[in-house]
Amino acid sequence: MATENRQVFIASPINGQIMTDNIGVRVVPYPTANDGEVLLKTSSMSADPYLRILYGSSPAGTVVVNSVIGTVLESKSDAFAVGDIVTGMCPLQTFTVSPADKLQRVENPLGLPLSSFIGALGFTGQTALGALQDTSFKAGDVVFVSGAAGAVGSMLGQLARHLGAKKVIGSAGGPEKCKLVVEKFGFDACIDYKEHTTAEAFGVALSAALGDDAVDYFADNTGGHVTAALWDLLANKARVAVIGAISEYNDAEPPLVRSFLAKLIFRSITVRGFVLLDWLARAGTRSEFFALVPQLVKDGVVAADETVYTGIDSFPEAFVGLFTGANTGKMIVNL
Amino acid sequence: MATENRQVFIASPINGQIMTDNIGVRVVPYPTANDGEVLLKTSSMSADPYLRILYGSSPAGTVVVNSVIGTVLESKSDAFAVGDIVTGMCPLQTFTVSPADKLQRVENPLGLPLSSFIGALGFTGQTALGALQDTSFKAGDVVFVSGAAGAVGSMLGQLARHLGAKKVIGSAGGPEKCKLVVEKFGFDACIDYKEHTTAEAFGVALSAALGDDAVDYFADNTGGHVTAALWDLLANKARVAVIGAISEYNDAEPPLVRSFLAKLIFRSITVRGFVLLDWLARAGTRSEFFALVPQLVKDGVVAADETVYTGIDSFPEAFVGLFTGANTGKMIVNL
Repeated sequence: MATENRQVFIASPINGQIMTDNIGVRVVPYPTANDGEVLLKTSSMSADPYLRILYGSSPAGTVVVNSVIGTVLESKSDAFAVGDIVTGMCPLQTFTVSPADKLQRVENPLGLPLSSFIGALGFTGQTALGALQDTSFKAGDVVFVSGAAGAVGSMLGQLARHLGAKKVIGSAGGPEKCKLVVEKFGFDACIDYKEHTTAEAFGVALSAALGDDAVDYFADNTGGHVTAALWDLLANKARVAVIGAISEYNDAEPPLVRSFLAKLIFRSITVRGFVLLDWLARAGTRSEFFALVPQLVKDGVVAADETVYTGIDSFPEAFVGLFTGANTGKMIVNL
Repeated sequence: MATENRQVFIASPINGQIMTDNIGVRVVPYPTANDGEVLLKTSSMSADPYLRILYGSSPAGTVVVNSVIGTVLESKSDAFAVGDIVTGMCPLQTFTVSPADKLQRVENPLGLPLSSFIGALGFTGQTALGALQDTSFKAGDVVFVSGAAGAVGSMLGQLARHLGAKKVIGSAGGPEKCKLVVEKFGFDACIDYKEHTTAEAFGVALSAALGDDAVDYFADNTGGHVTAALWDLLANKARVAVIGAISEYNDAEPPLVRSFLAKLIFRSITVRGFVLLDWLARAGTRSEFFALVPQLVKDGVVAADETVYTGIDSFPEAFVGLFTGANTGKMIVNL
């Protein structure tokens, strides 16, 4: 058992609502590293909603690739030595191989939990800061974040607060998550979208929380009726970062919504799809991120929640749990 | 009759589809200019789709204000003298009064038709150039323009061509308008949205016109099934300028459309509502416009079509005609 190599794969094609039996975990041969490659023992795997889109039409048998943390067991590259802790996009396996130039060494001078390097200090936190920058967040903005109890949403709201937001309001599903968003993540208010189940009802609740304000910056992680409510509550020259649309990912085709294009015109609103890799490709973004965020996490200015599952065999349950609201903050599988 | 002053007003509140009897023309007293004001005799009035939104919930009796060209009959301001030709936003009347500081003198060294100062050289042309600049049009872009036979659309496509577009494709209603778009306005292709009446059908026709290309820059004047078709035909990092949504303006509430938010994410797409006054408020835009566009119109590089109605009493018919496709290019009422 100790040296068995297990792998996450698509067990059956996903049609509509994702189920745990769409994702399988199987035994595969122990891999070998070729020249320029590195063999890792995986310690943590990230479970992220975007995988639903990426593998939505993959045939049975497809290997799932996502970000992991691992320890170098064998290196056929000068860039890494045995024992190095690294992160990168790899096949989700107990033992996995990657080209050395696709991996990054984990630099952890503050001694943060290693799993944070695929969470608060990984793509999750980078998406939160990147979306704020890429869509022109400004100090003094009134901010609304959908999916505020989620990995990106909780980080984004806290970073916006740190960077000078006037007010930060979120949405989440259920009173417990809303309580967490306000008490732990420090949002000014959180609207329960499971209590306010139409765009109209959600809009009334959000209006009350806004008072005389309108939303200058909207970070959208969910789509759905929360998003539909926002178009009437945006300020002149508001900016909307479209980061995710998790409420839509299990639909066979996108849901019908009221067109909001005319509303963009009269208030000069910008809506922008955020792609992390484009932001990371810009000079200086990665170093700016690591100069800012680890210290904020260390100091507790930004609380980085994790929902942790244990063992690679729990990956299917962890992944499906993203769509049923099983997580607060980052969903991690520790091996 | 010669000195009778007639005024365009909302005769009955507009509900849904606008009808000519929603707009009235009535006799009003001859106006007088107070200190700082100017009395004009109006020569041309602009009829524009946005008035449908602006006056959509106005009570009966409301006076309609829009851009006009006029000659100064009396000036109580040092800024203008009797006989000056001016343009500005004024109550639509035979004789109308405006604060001098809301008017601009028509400078016409190239001797272009005066009406062009509320069309190709007025808000229409300024919107076309402004939307290209404001939403980051780039030389080499593949451009798609909805409402390509309309005032803004026809200008925008021609300006995009002049500024280095790789390909310019438009949509218009009916074979005659499509012929005009290609032959007079020089688009590479024009898809008839009245022939291709669903998003799917329109998408197939547009794909054929695009060949191996995708749309880098989409100027949307219409909304509707044309817009719905575009989301799947945009290139990575495409930019969408939302300038108008004329297909929606007569609806009591916005139409149901398939959500396209998730599509914005994965191709890093920016959608931006365009407001002319914001663009004009930026330093240098107006002078840049007048340095470029009048000469292009003079040289015939940009063909500026006008559909002209005559007499203030024809304003209701001209305005309603915007929504039934009665115009190509700018809709003007000459007095």
